[in-house]
Amino acid sequence: MSRLEHDFLGEMSIADDVYYGIQTRRAMENFTISGITLAEFPAMITALALVKKAAAAANMELGCLPHDVGEAICAACDELADGKLHDQFPVDCIQGGAGTSTNMNANEVIANRALELLGHAKGEYAYCHPNNHVNCSQSTNDVYPTALRLALYDKLGGLLADMAHLRRGFEIKAEEFAEVLKMGRTQLQDAVPMTLGQEFGAYATTLGEDMLRLREARKLLLEINLGATAIGTGINAPEGYAALATEKLARFSGLPVVLSANLIEATWDTGGYVQISGVLKRIAVKLSKVCNDLRLLSSGPRAGLNEINLPRLQPGSSIMPGKVNPVIPEVVNQVAFDIIGKDVTITLAAEAGQLELNVMEPIIAFNLFTGIRRLGNAFRALQDRCVAGITANSEHCRELVEGSIGIITALNPYIGYENSASVAKEALESGGSVVDIVLARKLLSREQLDALLQPEKMARPSSAAPQKP
Amino acid sequence: MSRLEHDFLGEMSIADDVYYGIQTRRAMENFTISGITLAEFPAMITALALVKKAAAAANMELGCLPHDVGEAICAACDELADGKLHDQFPVDCIQGGAGTSTNMNANEVIANRALELLGHAKGEYAYCHPNNHVNCSQSTNDVYPTALRLALYDKLGGLLADMAHLRRGFEIKAEEFAEVLKMGRTQLQDAVPMTLGQEFGAYATTLGEDMLRLREARKLLLEINLGATAIGTGINAPEGYAALATEKLARFSGLPVVLSANLIEATWDTGGYVQISGVLKRIAVKLSKVCNDLRLLSSGPRAGLNEINLPRLQPGSSIMPGKVNPVIPEVVNQVAFDIIGKDVTITLAAEAGQLELNVMEPIIAFNLFTGIRRLGNAFRALQDRCVAGITANSEHCRELVEGSIGIITALNPYIGYENSASVAKEALESGGSVVDIVLARKLLSREQLDALLQPEKMARPSSAAPQKP
Amino acid sequence: MSRLEHDFLGEMSIADDVYYGIQTRRAMENFTISGITLAEFPAMITALALVKKAAAAANMELGCLPHDVGEAICAACDELADGKLHDQFPVDCIQGGAGTSTNMNANEVIANRALELLGHAKGEYAYCHPNNHVNCSQSTNDVYPTALRLALYDKLGGLLADMAHLRRGFEIKAEEFAEVLKMGRTQLQDAVPMTLGQEFGAYATTLGEDMLRLREARKLLLEINLGATAIGTGINAPEGYAALATEKLARFSGLPVVLSANLIEATWDTGGYVQISGVLKRIAVKLSKVCNDLRLLSSGPRAGLNEINLPRLQPGSSIMPGKVNPVIPEVVNQVAFDIIGKDVTITLAAEAGQLELNVMEPIIAFNLFTGIRRLGNAFRALQDRCVAGITANSEHCRELVEGSIGIITALNPYIGYENSASVAKEALESGGSVVDIVLARKLLSREQLDALLQPEKMARPSSAAPQKP
Amino acid sequence: MSRLEHDFLGEMSIADDVYYGIQTRRAMENFTISGITLAEFPAMITALALVKKAAAAANMELGCLPHDVGEAICAACDELADGKLHDQFPVDCIQGGAGTSTNMNANEVIANRALELLGHAKGEYAYCHPNNHVNCSQSTNDVYPTALRLALYDKLGGLLADMAHLRRGFEIKAEEFAEVLKMGRTQLQDAVPMTLGQEFGAYATTLGEDMLRLREARKLLLEINLGATAIGTGINAPEGYAALATEKLARFSGLPVVLSANLIEATWDTGGYVQISGVLKRIAVKLSKVCNDLRLLSSGPRAGLNEINLPRLQPGSSIMPGKVNPVIPEVVNQVAFDIIGKDVTITLAAEAGQLELNVMEPIIAFNLFTGIRRLGNAFRALQDRCVAGITANSEHCRELVEGSIGIITALNPYIGYENSASVAKEALESGGSVVDIVLARKLLSREQLDALLQPEKMARPSSAAPQKP
Repeated sequence: MSRLEHDFLGEMSIADDVYYGIQTRRAMENFTISGITLAEFPAMITALALVKKAAAAANMELGCLPHDVGEAICAACDELADGKLHDQFPVDCIQGGAGTSTNMNANEVIANRALELLGHAKGEYAYCHPNNHVNCSQSTNDVYPTALRLALYDKLGGLLADMAHLRRGFEIKAEEFAEVLKMGRTQLQDAVPMTLGQEFGAYATTLGEDMLRLREARKLLLEINLGATAIGTGINAPEGYAALATEKLARFSGLPVVLSANLIEATWDTGGYVQISGVLKRIAVKLSKVCNDLRLLSSGPRAGLNEINLPRLQPGSSIMPGKVNPVIPEVVNQVAFDIIGKDVTITLAAEAGQLELNVMEPIIAFNLFTGIRRLGNAFRALQDRCVAGITANSEHCRELVEGSIGIITALNPYIGYENSASVAKEALESGGSVVDIVLARKLLSREQLDALLQPEKMARPSSAAPQKP
Repeated sequence: MSRLEHDFLGEMSIADDVYYGIQTRRAMENFTISGITLAEFPAMITALALVKKAAAAANMELGCLPHDVGEAICAACDELADGKLHDQFPVDCIQGGAGTSTNMNANEVIANRALELLGHAKGEYAYCHPNNHVNCSQSTNDVYPTALRLALYDKLGGLLADMAHLRRGFEIKAEEFAEVLKMGRTQLQDAVPMTLGQEFGAYATTLGEDMLRLREARKLLLEINLGATAIGTGINAPEGYAALATEKLARFSGLPVVLSANLIEATWDTGGYVQISGVLKRIAVKLSKVCNDLRLLSSGPRAGLNEINLPRLQPGSSIMPGKVNPVIPEVVNQVAFDIIGKDVTITLAAEAGQLELNVMEPIIAFNLFTGIRRLGNAFRALQDRCVAGITANSEHCRELVEGSIGIITALNPYIGYENSASVAKEALESGGSVVDIVLARKLLSREQLDALLQPEKMARPSSAAPQKP
Repeated sequence: MSRLEHDFLGEMSIADDVYYGIQTRRAMENFTISGITLAEFPAMITALALVKKAAAAANMELGCLPHDVGEAICAACDELADGKLHDQFPVDCIQGGAGTSTNMNANEVIANRALELLGHAKGEYAYCHPNNHVNCSQSTNDVYPTALRLALYDKLGGLLADMAHLRRGFEIKAEEFAEVLKMGRTQLQDAVPMTLGQEFGAYATTLGEDMLRLREARKLLLEINLGATAIGTGINAPEGYAALATEKLARFSGLPVVLSANLIEATWDTGGYVQISGVLKRIAVKLSKVCNDLRLLSSGPRAGLNEINLPRLQPGSSIMPGKVNPVIPEVVNQVAFDIIGKDVTITLAAEAGQLELNVMEPIIAFNLFTGIRRLGNAFRALQDRCVAGITANSEHCRELVEGSIGIITALNPYIGYENSASVAKEALESGGSVVDIVLARKLLSREQLDALLQPEKMARPSSAAPQKP
Repeated sequence: MSRLEHDFLGEMSIADDVYYGIQTRRAMENFTISGITLAEFPAMITALALVKKAAAAANMELGCLPHDVGEAICAACDELADGKLHDQFPVDCIQGGAGTSTNMNANEVIANRALELLGHAKGEYAYCHPNNHVNCSQSTNDVYPTALRLALYDKLGGLLADMAHLRRGFEIKAEEFAEVLKMGRTQLQDAVPMTLGQEFGAYATTLGEDMLRLREARKLLLEINLGATAIGTGINAPEGYAALATEKLARFSGLPVVLSANLIEATWDTGGYVQISGVLKRIAVKLSKVCNDLRLLSSGPRAGLNEINLPRLQPGSSIMPGKVNPVIPEVVNQVAFDIIGKDVTITLAAEAGQLELNVMEPIIAFNLFTGIRRLGNAFRALQDRCVAGITANSEHCRELVEGSIGIITALNPYIGYENSASVAKEALESGGSVVDIVLARKLLSREQLDALLQPEKMARPSSAAPQKP
């Protein structure tokens, strides 16, 4: 059984059981790129429903929409926001038309569901029309970005929680390893002592800073252009609509959204997405650095640094028995590279905006949603399957410190840089120990040396102010 | 019902009806990043089956594998290559471990299917073991990249066909529009006349060049490292194995694969992927430029260039009636941006290789497979839903030429650059026509002008050598 | 005449008239990459001088540096900050060693100048030593990033001024063109009317938002790690040094710098640079979009949109007389691409940090300094050589609006989307006018139409609330 | 003393001693972006001279240019190609106008020098005019890309030589270290033995492959569009000119340049540059990987891998005495990041081409020239200041092998993967040796073990085919 629908390009037969209509069907045929539909991003469908409901409520209040129709539209939106009918969003996420197909998909599904609620059959658009009623006072160009902003705001909240989860994990390890003395390394060369707790504490700190930046950027999403309609002039929307619809949306969503001060600019501007993508990239860069470190510190077990042990999750080789690899940091590195590449895609898409609109928003949305999801998964995996189970090889760490040449640095203020350099050079060439050489050269006494070379003090030298010996 | 499997990390219960085993199960738990599994990339499963079969055949011939076991393995591989059991590859494509999980997934599925063929129950690995038999003489580090290369070679063949399809479409249009005279534009400023056929012919030419580059890069995939095992030294593989397995693989796949001359390098090198990604990016850049042009040339209908009409595929606005947008070029632009971003991801992944292996190959593979698929979809959509139906507004094109100032350029050789510039300036300022001003200034006679300013000659001036008038 | 200097690798002869010493000389030989030296970035030399002076002042106060030596160091630093001796910084900006060569260059120049001020000859390091005195309580790893942050803060201040200059230019044009009615375009297709003033006003707004983001990111630079020394543990610095040196630096620089709460993290973290680069990229993206628009709007003069005229700066062609090109937007586009590429370089460099240090900071610094300079030049050129002189083709703009189909959108609320679409379709196919068709179909009366289709109202519809006719 | 010059925009006074004219002067004022002029890229000036000479020769032969004027132009071109008057190219390399300013700069300098040679004063353009004579039958749009291609071809030749230099260096080290046994590592975990010679041999191989790819890409530069003039139609050039000018250019340059088959496409296509940039990026990726390896292998000296020693070039720290850093690999890494970022810039510039021209070629040219130069410098530095002096810590390398667990892999074919895994696990947990455990478990006899575990055989196992023991 099917119904006949038409638009200004012609007519099509639509199966009776689907809620979408002719424009969605055209879009399904036109866009066969990724095979990934909006149904995979329920936050966006929910956000669209909230926006449509806010518009309907404003339209009713302003007398542009009959109350019975408006109420039915609101009820249909509530169902969508409850997770119903999400399978009625079959359009490919990578689409032309600046989101028109997604907006019309929502309009059609809501109209047909509202028709049912009103006691009509699907397709009887005289009673509730996708454009005239559901899309009343709206354009894709204000609805789509507004919904996108709400949905992104929501998903970034989840990402922040995932980040906090890992940060807490690093903090716990920082405490656990607070007394594990180890060599610090700069440029991969032995430097001076520190604790493993300090190493992990820095990871917690850096994540915390990234969270601050992400929160700042996320706030930009609360500025919306609802009521801008086609190009920001508000054409086709009644006076007062923009402010009222924004107010309704704030109420329905529980988010303090505000109307942009320049709706022309807000309609084409993609700066907020670029900013968020830039911060996600920053997060990816840091995350990748941390994973690189974890892989370095756990290298070995016998021909590497071997300072820490990552949990053993799966046999690491189909051929080398007993080998276990740092698979979680490795997969997180790859997610980071994915995010960094996505930032370039988003950059190009943003740059391609022309005049009153940026038609490339769908690929921006798709990359942000996909990237945020993968990044969140990566944060959780890193904490739950790796960081939480890391153990330290404390003894090996300490041995490396005690045999090092780098402890000479602590003698710098007492014997001068040039004497120190000369001792270091001899130690390096002879394979001998720094302490022996300093004693042999009578640069310091044994007692002085013992006082200065307590490695624990070297890791927190500020609590142990050097005194001229 | 389930069976108990174990590896050196412990044991797990595996449902009896699945063909994969404990290592696949561990990987399923460890990697929950993209939700996209190898089952979506059947070419890779087929390629893995071909590689495993080639290895088994070589192992049998070299006496390393009992014939009955080897034959069962080969039969199981044939089933995989026929598209069977692909749902038994549930590991996330974005994974750590350099593909070990994918290789072990194949080893386990093949072992269990071979066991069935041998009359044993799944899990009775004493008779056919995932590592000892299916993976015999192999390592993930040679199997995974070899299979990846075969699969990519296959998919690039499809992409080349999609490109040829569009190129042919442009050639047809080049012929169709051979007599449509129009203004050429440089820097978006009116330049000199040409034909619309020349415009489209250039698109065909540029695509042809891109195909040549892609064919060159694709050939690099035929160099494989099968037999390199863990790090290229061939450890655990019998003498002669590498050459023999390569020969078998060439036979089974029908592709002229050759063994790399330096297996150490071949095991960590990702240069071939970077090269292919670079060429895909080049293709994306050109494709994006062409789509930008199509959108420019079809801009309007009344306040734009309006030289061509794209097929009207769907209503272009939820608010502006009658508006139809260039949705196909727009979606193709977005695919191009996706490819360009993916190139950066692949670049970072390639750069992250360390010592004897590049552990980031899975994200490289994932991005190449996804990118090639989307690009192929884009080429087909562009031809079938856009280029094939483009029509020209010939009359409007000609009007623009005849009213242009740019035709003055044709007079350059006869009246000199400075006179020409002066005429152009007057025309621009007065709004008048070039011809009138040249006549008024008596720079040329009407007859001379008529002879020189035949726009058709200007579009193909080399067939009409200018003579001093 | 020359002096002999030595370090722990050996000795070299140094010309007597140069202020740098053996370590600078080694670096000059080691790094021959870009040919661009620190002398081209005086803000960085000044910042180094301020940091060295702050360190000396703190060292004196803490009793680590004899007063006469410390005062001489401070005096030498003042000279550097005054622009003197900048030609004594000959090391290539692209250098290995995480800035050690730049720090030692500063140490050597300051030591030798201080020696002169103390009445000694250059090279008499017993009296004032580059390491023991000038670098006292310091490491490259805290000095270099601290100076870099100060210098970037300064240069970003200049950039903000350049941005404000252009923003003001756009505001002026927004006012000037406030009454120029024109077609708005979405997806390059005719949409609905707006004013040219709104177009330019949006550019001003978008620039203003970019400035806010840049100011936020710039603030991150005020957090420094002075006193962290080698790896953040503060080794070799006396108790209380970090806080005191930071306080001194705030005083000398006049900037409210604060000490990072986690000096370990602050020593390897490059997140601030990544953030700034990300914002510069955002700015570049917007700037490029605006330039694309300016080139589109000024396309023609006869076969393009021709809505505005850019100032005619230079003959646009060696062959097409009278042609003038939008050379300034074109060059600004190129600067934008440069910035976007630099962001990728900075991203890779940031990702490459390992353990306690990011050794790739010099390429980050080089790209930020170069990018900021070029971007500032681009902003000024765009305003002074382009935007300031833009004029509008008001009549042509109005003609395009009046002949457009897009005005039908204004009738949408009164005749419904489907009627509107049908009228639009007929207009498009027949080439006729929207008004004539609406009248012929008797959808609205002439009076109703005249009231609704005042284009000025369409550009500011919110001040003209639609009433049901 | 000065002369007055004019163009269609007005007139300017030009100092008498300069060879450039009014259009160059305008460009100097318009473009103040990078401060870097063409004088820094003499290969481009030489290439422009060759192109101009070829054009003049063809024009003379076709009767379009008086012989005396043409000869003077050729003579002036010869002087430029000899390196003279390069200081007369003061226009910023980052410029709008698609290279028009650079072309006009060349036209003006050549015209004025030709005038002098003809016995006239500079500026007496009636006798030899920059446009009418020097630029005769030409446009910027064919001259600029043709010259760019010649110049790039030349510089890439130099780069190939620099790459060969390093490759040879790696080959020498491969031989020198042929007997140094060491652990191979995959995923930074101990894998199986190899030789250090194999490690370095792989670097030589990979460089060799990169050179092949660069040679392929370089060949694309030999296809030129000389004679295409403004948009590829050859307007303003006499019949036969394109072929003849190409032939002349081949003769004068000694390069087998050929005329593109589709001059319309060739005039806007930047695919060749994108291809070359893509290959440079590939080279950068490999080079960065190699440098990462060198830094890893030389990490330590006591708390790192410490397998090799890099030459000690400069003190590595202003605070840690005796520390020496891998400064050359570090700076080469940074050059690699620079190249990778430049590839993105070039990608964006190439994508921004519109219709008949890509106006962004100057930034492409600038980035390619700068990148090639820095990459060449990096290759030479890496060989001369690092690789040539690398030494091996052979004893330490061997100790790591002998104490490793990875040698168990060699027993795999004899005791099975699961036994091997179990032995490995015990060794790992107990800290014991693989050999002891295998003997204790009586899996193999001492004789069998000794035969199998000769590490040298493990590094070249194919010459030692395993036999079932």
